[in-house]
This record gives sequence, structure tokens and C-alpha cells, in this order.
Amino acid sequence: MEDIFCQVAAGKVQSDVIYKDDEVTAFRDVRPVAKTHILIIPNRHISGISEAKEPDAPLLGHMLLVAKKLAEQEGVASSGYRLVINSGPDAGQAVPHLHLHLIGGREMGWPPG
Amino acid sequence: MEDIFCQVAAGKVQSDVIYKDDEVTAFRDVRPVAKTHILIIPNRHISGISEAKEPDAPLLGHMLLVAKKLAEQEGVASSGYRLVINSGPDAGQAVPHLHLHLIGGREMGWPPG
Repeated sequence: MEDIFCQVAAGKVQSDVIYKDDEVTAFRDVRPVAKTHILIIPNRHISGISEAKEPDAPLLGHMLLVAKKLAEQEGVASSGYRLVINSGPDAGQAVPHLHLHLIGGREMGWPPG
Repeated sequence: MEDIFCQVAAGKVQSDVIYKDDEVTAFRDVRPVAKTHILIIPNRHISGISEAKEPDAPLLGHMLLVAKKLAEQEGVASSGYRLVINSGPDAGQAVPHLHLHLIGGREMGWPPG
């Protein structure tokens, strides 16, 4: 299964990649909703958080820790940021490849959508 | 440092706990923003995602996997759900103890706040 984010992770499509390691790739969302809007994805295909399994726990934790580090790099660690994972239609999951949104650089309201 | 969520994890305050293991506790948000609104917290004190460290990766991943399982239990796995972590003032982090929101049971808009 090769979706658009598999292609991003493989470097097969143009994208604004700002971080990459053996496990994850981070790149700027093409439709940003704030000054900082970055997606963190696993390099291998996981279609969503609902498909993640117990052995994926370290990878999932790593995604969150990469988001935290990128928030520092972006200068939004102190002002604040929101991390969001959408799953399924009610949440509007747009691409069938697990992705974590890092959103910061402006005040955000509640509820989160 | 004993905050209100430390007390929830320790069973020292009344709360609607729906899941508990050695690492995490999950309970219903007292101010729900959807039919399903659950908080998943680490039992030990971590003040927020910005204070999480590399050795916390498995714990962080476990929090996400518990959220996924609770979404199944709540019957929102197919309809969809949103997972949210707030960090700092711009995101409105209300309690200085890491917590993951699981929100489902209604259609959610974008952006997420």
C-alpha cells in the first residue's frame, strides 16, 4: 500500500521535510492552520492510530518526542502548541497513513474542533 | 509535586475512572466536549509533553494505544475520534500533568481550535 505519505517518507514526492530519521519523517502541512503546522509520520505504512499494535508503542512515543523537539526548534515550546491525531471520518482523517499534527504559533480555542 | 491528576491516579479524589494499569489511568473529563471525552494520564508525574524524555517513549506510546483501545470500547473506532495533547498557554493546557484527550461521538471540524 503506497499512499502519498509513504511517498513523502521515501522522498518520492516534493515536500518541505524538516526532520528525518530511520523511524519517522516530519514535514510542513501544505494547508497550514497556524504559523507552525508540521506533520510527523512513521516511515513505514500504518494506516492510522486505530491500526497501531502493541509493538508500535516505542515508535508512537518517538513520534510525540520528535514533535516536542520540533516545537522547541520552531520557538513555540514556551508559548504553547497542540498535538493532534485524527482517526476516521468524524475526525476528518484525510490521508490513510498515521500522522501527528504539531500546531503552534497562535492561541487556540476549545473544544478542538 | 502533587497535582489534581496525581491524586486521580492515586485514587485520592473522586473521578470516573474507566481504565487503570501500572502505567496509566483513564477517566472521563468532567467538562466533556463530546459524547466520548476521556483523559489518559501517566500515573507518575510528568508535567506535560514538553517535559517528557527519551526513556518515556514506551509510556507515551502506551498512552496512545490505551486511547485506541478505549475508542473501541466506546464504540467510536469506526465513526472516528480525535486525540489531543495540549502544551502551554496557547493551547490552553489546564492541568500541569500530561494528559491525552480522546474525543469522539460527533463530527469534528478543522482546524482543531
